[in-house]
Amino acid sequence: MSGSEGDTSEAASAAAVDAVVRSGGPQLTALMERVEARLAQLVVDHGEILARHATATIAAGGKRLRPLLVFLAAGDLDASTGATGDRLVRAAAAVELIHSASLVHDDVLDGAALRRGAPTVVAAAGRAVATATGDLLFARAFAELAGGGELEDVRALSAAASALAAGELLQRADAWDTGVPLERYLRRCELKTSSLFEAACRLGALGTASVSLSGAAKRPPATTGLSPSGARKRPPAGGVTDALAQFGRRIGLAFQLLDDVLDVSGPAERTGKARGTDLLDGTVTLPLIVARERDPQLARIDLRALRTAADAEAVCDRIAATGALADAKRQALDVVAQAREQLPRLPDRQRRALELVAEGVVERYA
Amino acid sequence: MSGSEGDTSEAASAAAVDAVVRSGGPQLTALMERVEARLAQLVVDHGEILARHATATIAAGGKRLRPLLVFLAAGDLDASTGATGDRLVRAAAAVELIHSASLVHDDVLDGAALRRGAPTVVAAAGRAVATATGDLLFARAFAELAGGGELEDVRALSAAASALAAGELLQRADAWDTGVPLERYLRRCELKTSSLFEAACRLGALGTASVSLSGAAKRPPATTGLSPSGARKRPPAGGVTDALAQFGRRIGLAFQLLDDVLDVSGPAERTGKARGTDLLDGTVTLPLIVARERDPQLARIDLRALRTAADAEAVCDRIAATGALADAKRQALDVVAQAREQLPRLPDRQRRALELVAEGVVERYA
Repeated sequence: MSGSEGDTSEAASAAAVDAVVRSGGPQLTALMERVEARLAQLVVDHGEILARHATATIAAGGKRLRPLLVFLAAGDLDASTGATGDRLVRAAAAVELIHSASLVHDDVLDGAALRRGAPTVVAAAGRAVATATGDLLFARAFAELAGGGELEDVRALSAAASALAAGELLQRADAWDTGVPLERYLRRCELKTSSLFEAACRLGALGTASVSLSGAAKRPPATTGLSPSGARKRPPAGGVTDALAQFGRRIGLAFQLLDDVLDVSGPAERTGKARGTDLLDGTVTLPLIVARERDPQLARIDLRALRTAADAEAVCDRIAATGALADAKRQALDVVAQAREQLPRLPDRQRRALELVAEGVVERYA
Repeated sequence: MSGSEGDTSEAASAAAVDAVVRSGGPQLTALMERVEARLAQLVVDHGEILARHATATIAAGGKRLRPLLVFLAAGDLDASTGATGDRLVRAAAAVELIHSASLVHDDVLDGAALRRGAPTVVAAAGRAVATATGDLLFARAFAELAGGGELEDVRALSAAASALAAGELLQRADAWDTGVPLERYLRRCELKTSSLFEAACRLGALGTASVSLSGAAKRPPATTGLSPSGARKRPPAGGVTDALAQFGRRIGLAFQLLDDVLDVSGPAERTGKARGTDLLDGTVTLPLIVARERDPQLARIDLRALRTAADAEAVCDRIAATGALADAKRQALDVVAQAREQLPRLPDRQRRALELVAEGVVERYA
């Protein structure tokens, strides 16, 4: 939940993303490649200055989990040609741009030197350039959608972008507070992480709502299509688009919860960062929230007094000793299970791909 | 052209804005009040955290020159009721939000303590909160437009937001370079300042393009409506909207050029800041660009060696001694004159109001 939010999970779920893309066939591969080309073009379009500073962040970027969700939520990729394909590619690029912008700004605040092995913008070019680079990526995300032609896409993205920033504000407001209520922590996760996963799924579903999923989308949700297993196949009131958005939201939440568990559990060789970095940052997450009920001394700990990595690791050990990590992990897995349960009626191939993503989020715990 | 870009000019042109609003009658006053209410509501909608940090920036904000331009470019305010009025108010609020966001981020980079007499967000709450607050204002600007329903409005705003960030990057790339070419300096001004003025005018013109200005907008630009004075009344190829956007662009450029002159000329009692703050910041602007041709030693000056306000003032004096300030000022006034010349055929009242804004930009030199 710190500035490096999502980074650990992203690296860990790389294999899962690759597996899903491979299983998606040539259309999915082609769409993912179009996103890469579009992101690269954006950098070129904005001249040498952006090219110099943003390449490391965008081009050497993450695993493209969010763009992948756009396409998976879109469903029938055979229909993803022409205008529909363009819309989806723009949406996928826009979501990734917002994600990149938030990472660039996070790195500024954390003074981070490296991200995914490459120097951060702030390390390479200073705070001013990094702040402006983040702003530019942010603005280009909206330009990307506006260049398409769907106002509802802009609405979905601006809601997510607002949530990201509001989540950051909430995190800073609650910093160092070991007594932060669970609900407030969960709200923070939803704002900081779930919202962009939700937007990715919503944008994908919107992109083909009138094409591939039309059968499901147009079916009145409350009256038809319920399987004997009940809730599992029932789309919520807002239809398939809302159901897929809700799936994204849950997956995002689980993603963040597990990321927060990994920060405490390590091991560092696996996560790529020292244990307890969130604690050093004053960021209170689920493991401590669970553990403080079991070890009253943890509730009274002064995080500001932690100075070194060893201090932080000692607190991590104390949290682990309460059994809180298993509990926190179980809560995260429950959320993933809910996400899968709530998937609406979908073509088999689409459903399998989305379930594969859900499995990928938890896979690193196997 | 520093982080405090536009601040001096804004304060100085307060009287001009007030005069224009007064002359605009009750409709304009009502629309400007609706913008204030909308901005205040936005803060409330985003909870105590944003309220705490953004109020000083938004609510105690500037002179609303950019929202004013939206309404003046819209023209016939009698038509600004219902959907048209809503669209214009949203556009005006969005433009002001982008402006506020950029000021909040500028203050972070400059470590500024005060803006318009109130503590900056960064001074009150630190870099992390200020960066996130700027991001949130930025995102809300797009949400504001997306909540309306015009994709072309989103396009205009995202272009301006991208330009602002690109201008900041250009400024940082050219920092400390006393040999920066004039064209590159002008490009920076266009990106950092003109673009948002342009967007304000474009958004206003778009908002009523099908209503009040329909007569002018629909008239084929190349074939009718030319007055004997030729160029003055001729709308460019893109019609009235483009012509008004171009007016905004020119006014923005003049605004920035004069701001940069004021940074060197002072006096501090009038501008509210010490002379030469741009120089201390490594920001090379028009006065030095003009002066270096006349005083070769100025071309060789090392801005990094300037340490104190007195150092900066000494360079300001040396620039002034070349006569460069009068020259730079003349160039700015030429740009204002061009802006007025290029105004398209408009109703008298609208034209007078826009000319009043143009005069307001230069008025502080009277």
